[in-house]
Amino acid sequence: MELLSFKTPEIAHFAYLLSDGHNAALIDPRRDTQEYLKAARERGVQIRYIFETHRQEDFVMGSTFLAQQTGAQIVNGTHELFGHGDLRLEDGEHVTLGSLKLRALHTPGHTPESMCYAIYESEGNKPAWGVFTGDTLFFGTTGRTDLTDRNKSVENAAILYDSVHSKLSGLGDTALILPAHGPGSVCGSGMASRPSSTLGVEKKENDVFTLSRQEFANKKGSEQLSRPPFFRHMEKVNLEGGIAPVNSTGTIQIVDVDTIREKNKETLVYDTREPEAYAGGHVSDSYSIWLGGLPVFGGWVADKNSEIYLITDRESDIDTAVTYLSRIGIDNVKGALAGGFGNWRKSGAPISTSGTISAQELKDDPLSFQILDVREKDEFIKGHIPGSENIFVGHLLHKLDELDFDKSRPVIVTCGVGHRAGLGVSILRRGGYKDVRNLLGGMSAWNQLNLATIQ
Amino acid sequence: MELLSFKTPEIAHFAYLLSDGHNAALIDPRRDTQEYLKAARERGVQIRYIFETHRQEDFVMGSTFLAQQTGAQIVNGTHELFGHGDLRLEDGEHVTLGSLKLRALHTPGHTPESMCYAIYESEGNKPAWGVFTGDTLFFGTTGRTDLTDRNKSVENAAILYDSVHSKLSGLGDTALILPAHGPGSVCGSGMASRPSSTLGVEKKENDVFTLSRQEFANKKGSEQLSRPPFFRHMEKVNLEGGIAPVNSTGTIQIVDVDTIREKNKETLVYDTREPEAYAGGHVSDSYSIWLGGLPVFGGWVADKNSEIYLITDRESDIDTAVTYLSRIGIDNVKGALAGGFGNWRKSGAPISTSGTISAQELKDDPLSFQILDVREKDEFIKGHIPGSENIFVGHLLHKLDELDFDKSRPVIVTCGVGHRAGLGVSILRRGGYKDVRNLLGGMSAWNQLNLATIQ
Amino acid sequence: MELLSFKTPEIAHFAYLLSDGHNAALIDPRRDTQEYLKAARERGVQIRYIFETHRQEDFVMGSTFLAQQTGAQIVNGTHELFGHGDLRLEDGEHVTLGSLKLRALHTPGHTPESMCYAIYESEGNKPAWGVFTGDTLFFGTTGRTDLTDRNKSVENAAILYDSVHSKLSGLGDTALILPAHGPGSVCGSGMASRPSSTLGVEKKENDVFTLSRQEFANKKGSEQLSRPPFFRHMEKVNLEGGIAPVNSTGTIQIVDVDTIREKNKETLVYDTREPEAYAGGHVSDSYSIWLGGLPVFGGWVADKNSEIYLITDRESDIDTAVTYLSRIGIDNVKGALAGGFGNWRKSGAPISTSGTISAQELKDDPLSFQILDVREKDEFIKGHIPGSENIFVGHLLHKLDELDFDKSRPVIVTCGVGHRAGLGVSILRRGGYKDVRNLLGGMSAWNQLNLATIQ
Amino acid sequence: MELLSFKTPEIAHFAYLLSDGHNAALIDPRRDTQEYLKAARERGVQIRYIFETHRQEDFVMGSTFLAQQTGAQIVNGTHELFGHGDLRLEDGEHVTLGSLKLRALHTPGHTPESMCYAIYESEGNKPAWGVFTGDTLFFGTTGRTDLTDRNKSVENAAILYDSVHSKLSGLGDTALILPAHGPGSVCGSGMASRPSSTLGVEKKENDVFTLSRQEFANKKGSEQLSRPPFFRHMEKVNLEGGIAPVNSTGTIQIVDVDTIREKNKETLVYDTREPEAYAGGHVSDSYSIWLGGLPVFGGWVADKNSEIYLITDRESDIDTAVTYLSRIGIDNVKGALAGGFGNWRKSGAPISTSGTISAQELKDDPLSFQILDVREKDEFIKGHIPGSENIFVGHLLHKLDELDFDKSRPVIVTCGVGHRAGLGVSILRRGGYKDVRNLLGGMSAWNQLNLATIQ
Repeated sequence: MELLSFKTPEIAHFAYLLSDGHNAALIDPRRDTQEYLKAARERGVQIRYIFETHRQEDFVMGSTFLAQQTGAQIVNGTHELFGHGDLRLEDGEHVTLGSLKLRALHTPGHTPESMCYAIYESEGNKPAWGVFTGDTLFFGTTGRTDLTDRNKSVENAAILYDSVHSKLSGLGDTALILPAHGPGSVCGSGMASRPSSTLGVEKKENDVFTLSRQEFANKKGSEQLSRPPFFRHMEKVNLEGGIAPVNSTGTIQIVDVDTIREKNKETLVYDTREPEAYAGGHVSDSYSIWLGGLPVFGGWVADKNSEIYLITDRESDIDTAVTYLSRIGIDNVKGALAGGFGNWRKSGAPISTSGTISAQELKDDPLSFQILDVREKDEFIKGHIPGSENIFVGHLLHKLDELDFDKSRPVIVTCGVGHRAGLGVSILRRGGYKDVRNLLGGMSAWNQLNLATIQ
Repeated sequence: MELLSFKTPEIAHFAYLLSDGHNAALIDPRRDTQEYLKAARERGVQIRYIFETHRQEDFVMGSTFLAQQTGAQIVNGTHELFGHGDLRLEDGEHVTLGSLKLRALHTPGHTPESMCYAIYESEGNKPAWGVFTGDTLFFGTTGRTDLTDRNKSVENAAILYDSVHSKLSGLGDTALILPAHGPGSVCGSGMASRPSSTLGVEKKENDVFTLSRQEFANKKGSEQLSRPPFFRHMEKVNLEGGIAPVNSTGTIQIVDVDTIREKNKETLVYDTREPEAYAGGHVSDSYSIWLGGLPVFGGWVADKNSEIYLITDRESDIDTAVTYLSRIGIDNVKGALAGGFGNWRKSGAPISTSGTISAQELKDDPLSFQILDVREKDEFIKGHIPGSENIFVGHLLHKLDELDFDKSRPVIVTCGVGHRAGLGVSILRRGGYKDVRNLLGGMSAWNQLNLATIQ
Repeated sequence: MELLSFKTPEIAHFAYLLSDGHNAALIDPRRDTQEYLKAARERGVQIRYIFETHRQEDFVMGSTFLAQQTGAQIVNGTHELFGHGDLRLEDGEHVTLGSLKLRALHTPGHTPESMCYAIYESEGNKPAWGVFTGDTLFFGTTGRTDLTDRNKSVENAAILYDSVHSKLSGLGDTALILPAHGPGSVCGSGMASRPSSTLGVEKKENDVFTLSRQEFANKKGSEQLSRPPFFRHMEKVNLEGGIAPVNSTGTIQIVDVDTIREKNKETLVYDTREPEAYAGGHVSDSYSIWLGGLPVFGGWVADKNSEIYLITDRESDIDTAVTYLSRIGIDNVKGALAGGFGNWRKSGAPISTSGTISAQELKDDPLSFQILDVREKDEFIKGHIPGSENIFVGHLLHKLDELDFDKSRPVIVTCGVGHRAGLGVSILRRGGYKDVRNLLGGMSAWNQLNLATIQ
Repeated sequence: MELLSFKTPEIAHFAYLLSDGHNAALIDPRRDTQEYLKAARERGVQIRYIFETHRQEDFVMGSTFLAQQTGAQIVNGTHELFGHGDLRLEDGEHVTLGSLKLRALHTPGHTPESMCYAIYESEGNKPAWGVFTGDTLFFGTTGRTDLTDRNKSVENAAILYDSVHSKLSGLGDTALILPAHGPGSVCGSGMASRPSSTLGVEKKENDVFTLSRQEFANKKGSEQLSRPPFFRHMEKVNLEGGIAPVNSTGTIQIVDVDTIREKNKETLVYDTREPEAYAGGHVSDSYSIWLGGLPVFGGWVADKNSEIYLITDRESDIDTAVTYLSRIGIDNVKGALAGGFGNWRKSGAPISTSGTISAQELKDDPLSFQILDVREKDEFIKGHIPGSENIFVGHLLHKLDELDFDKSRPVIVTCGVGHRAGLGVSILRRGGYKDVRNLLGGMSAWNQLNLATIQ
């Protein structure tokens, strides 16, 4: 038996390849499947089954495409939120994979259709070797329960509690926990950064085991997490096992400065450079979204129909950016600036700048500035700069009117380290704010200097 | 101005990217276009035009696909053997590429539609900077003239002579010669291995300049080159600018030993390992075609409709093999053996072996063997082992009946170094020959030992 | 906290990088340290400490070299078999790494100096988060106890039992077990192929917990494992934290056929191709050692003073081979054949061949052959071909005299799948055996066909 | 015969590998030799000779190191400025390389010891196939003649003229010209961007052929090129064939923010990010030198004894930066900031900013600024912004006193596209200028907007 995990760091997603040396199962694939295929090939194993734990919300699933590529069967549950599937397992049914057995467990809570799959070595009557837990059970926490209906979050949390206790709790303390997400995922909060965990570990450290049913439901149900708009599209395409990739690596057209200048009026321009570079010079009206932020924040600004042009630091970033956006269903990248911002600079085309400020400078002169904190409300509540306002960066574009700042006075934008603030800066600049500055290092720098915060 | 050349070594093909720093032209692209796109991107230039010198016979062109990917226009001539094209130039017309000018020259001979394109720097009245010569003028030789009609080869050679003298000769001795092929191509023979050449160089060293019209026509027209069967398919698809790639890298299914055993009866199995490895153990009835030989010899055995399974030495060879075959239009690779021959070996499935022999051993005991030389007739004529018969390996499958060897007596197969002989061995084995041995090192080893040959 | 593991598959070795996001510790580094440095860099963490669990026997340690490269301190125990070290910890002492704490545990048994290091998150009074167990506790088994003195193996096993029960048992069932080796290592046998384990898991599945002290000591102490000769050299250099690398990638000289012919008399030639390729043609007197087998079997044939020339399948294999050999202290690779065996073949130089046979063929005609099984005695005892003799391949060179086979009659050599048999074939050929054949697929193929074995 | 060229783009250097398929010569190697070794290996050829055309001034040669690695002999001339060499050839002597012959030609002018090597195919009495011309003859121009003594530049140019006419002119118009440098090199100016050239081409387009002796000497001798300080060190180490590499890839220590803060006082900090990023935030007193500029401008600021710390955009840039600096003999890179500028930002450490300005903004308000143009004098003379002062960036550090700008008023720094200006900005900032801004896009942007320049 070999178990291999594949991490997609930007969305903190895990897929798994489980094999007995000849046959393999792939659990919860993303849309760009090459890495999975390559791993299977290198081991000389054939992917026979694709298991889905649930209809993922935060990325386009690759089940249907991978099934085409491999001839594998898609395995999931009987709930109607799985709108497809070759083998639809009832709770308790199993699939045999060479010398292994995978038993289906229906574990609603995170979503109604959520399934877990317990792994058994077929020899003898052993406890489960491990369990693929999807978004039901993470390391140190559980999946969010507000997605289907924010008002039923507490209720769903209680259902999740019951699922865990009735279906997972008895698998044996040595069972490996194999979840679909890790720390940083938008599908939950507070994941532990352990490299691995077992049911025994979780029983000691996870709220779902250490709290009572009611305590857990209340705590879990009161989380305040934002819900990215692209979740709606993911739910739709993942109902049918996702959609095949459109853009192949290397094929995005590169365009000249004139094309960007012309298209800038009607389309979105994403500048994927670091925030200092954006501050030092950028194309007017472009959005600043750092490379690693595209598969989340790219989906707050654009939707699947948006046409996007890219301005990158390096040529090699183009394919990365396209892949990241495609993972949340954004396939309409129409082009990228040939030569990146370096070519724009040389062309004599207009260049905008925005400002930066260090934590020390802000501390020395706080009254000169209006301060906008664009982190999630949960983060803001835990500690923020005195006098700062909070609008989550994902909501900022649509809540600009709610911001009663003076457009002619300087604004400081802050977040954790300065990345999301970069996007905030670009949104304010598009919104007519003249002097907008990124607090470099954000709350990290602020806290390192032990400057005052309030809760 | 920058000129970049792209070599596809296995078919000795050259494509070119010519740019003025902003705009670029791509000359004679192959079907898998990533390398071209990457080079354009890295330079920050946009491909505006795709020039075709002629309807290539030996590989699938990428014009149509590259035009889709880039929005570039396809440029060629007005002859009907260009069945497509956005800008169809008459002889003498030109296209402007930023600060450069490319003038079309109709140069029939290799084929009726063949075009050359002379490059001019627009400043002043300078001679041509270079000329894309397609298969008209190579380094040290010219394109073969037997393809349209073997019986008109002498006549076509005279036409080619006239094209060169009337259209190219006056471009100026400093003009760079930029052909579509180099040494090893099946589109000509006797190319010089210079890294570059100019018209001035060719005037001193190329038959088309150093011989008289009649001498040239007779010599060129009497070449005896084989015509691979896949040329027919290439001519058809290239009439329309080629076909888009089908198989993407990494997506070929890998299959188990049982699948190969079952499919072996009805499909082709290509073993891409080196000849010694094949000799030491192989799957019965598989064809031995070394990796680098696939884009030529793969097309002598298979056609575009053949279903093929691969047995490779390493996992990474699978994609290489698929790409090589796709370049000659063979898109029907259905799978590759998981784990390569190593897995076959372990499985207990039947293994065949064939023999090898060294040049010294053969020399010491020549009378015990029947010797088959599978090189081209032109090679055979120049010197071969006394007593050897000659059937070109590409024809062997269909000429097995013409071989009056005793199937129960041992056969030695030889070629240049042992690669083509490997294919010959596998064909004879399929044909019922019991004891077939590859002369390791072939005529190279034989000649190194100064053993006797006859002409 | 982040924990990263680095696997060296050919020797089944694990090193670890443990960091708190700023500072890091590297546990049990091998000699070629680039991979560790790269990982630290990519994370932006500084390696402050290098922990050694014991004086490794099966590979050259990289502690001293890595300390030079990073300025890190070497941490180990106070036993004299650690002949060096910047921080020498008594049992129970600890080192602080940012927010983490690593506590030293002296756990003799595998070797007298063996240490484990328990990891604690400093917040609160939690149980250990994990423990680096070196060769003391593996997944499902423990380190071999025969290395210091084969006659005291049972006694050492009892000491190991005590170490585990007194030092590790109380760390808490959730503690991750982080050993230095996995399945396939020569430092133990019977490792489980789990991707991770905890103390809780081991308590249920590991002999050291499930057997009594006496049962465990007897069972562990009676293992029959071979002891590679290079262990002696490893013990010497690792006493001082290993030796720095000598050969850098890409710098091995490539030499021509004449050099190999000349050097062949006085040096070792290692042919790293697959066994079928070797059988189909090879350089006389060369040893057949497949690429992946070099870091173990390369050390049975050569010692640190041997001069070695390589014949590889591909150019890229040269660096791999050199790295593999250097890991066991063999730095005297003097060259590799330019162009690999392909060039030898072309040169007309003499070529030897050996034979192959399939399991079915052997089964059909068993009486024609003398059969030599070159697996470890433990493997042989569990089931072998009736009539076969057993000499472990590592001992074969020095026990050729003990083999009372008829040199003029054909010999079949077998092992697990055919790799070690390849080495056996080449040793017998050097020893004067005329007709030696490799049983392709070895006992794997034999068993797949359900052919008879005896114990 | 195969000829391969290796380009080192940042210093516009060419080395060559010439082989007959078995034996090879390497011409003018740089210090990091892996690329050469790899190419030789992939072709299966052995490097037998290392030819030096002269004692290079602009990079550390790799002759001695490559000779150690390969056993090859170093070939050069008899002049004492070659302080070493295994085969010291008189003018007219030759070396045989398999089927090829390389004839030595002493061609003083660029430097007194300069040699060219003409390549002959040994069959028959043909003209030269090509000639390695070092810095004697470039495409379209010749090497600078001011290096040995600026006052003897005209005189040396006449000597060079004579060398070319007496030694090269008669080699035959088809001879390939194979120089050591291309456009962008500091060893000459005005190279043509042809991909290849022949003697015939040069006779039509190169001043050394189209001008009279006197005209050429006067024109060449009046070039005004700066002489980087590192030339002195190169001359010294290259007298002995260069020095072996010190820093291996991947081994530079990464250090934390505190280390940089502390070391910043006594050492140099090089920030290799793009100029906009530097403007948006940087470490006080760091020098801004973009990555590609290190192997030239890194040597204007540092010398071989300087200790340097790096701040890069990405982890992968560290090795690139170290290699680039090592090529001009700067081996004292002591460390690189872990996590690049991103980590600095987060740490709360002080951040400086500088300004940027677009060409349009400057044009609209020219009187508010003092303008410093840091290009070479030759570039400045050809056209600059009215009112701008010129100090070449390489001299700026030592000529700050000569700049009579008002430190309290804003300064604009400009160059070609903004890279060298970035370095200029950082030097002015260190020099006490408060408000320093980089003209983004530099003279390129200025000219694209057709704004006024004066000569």
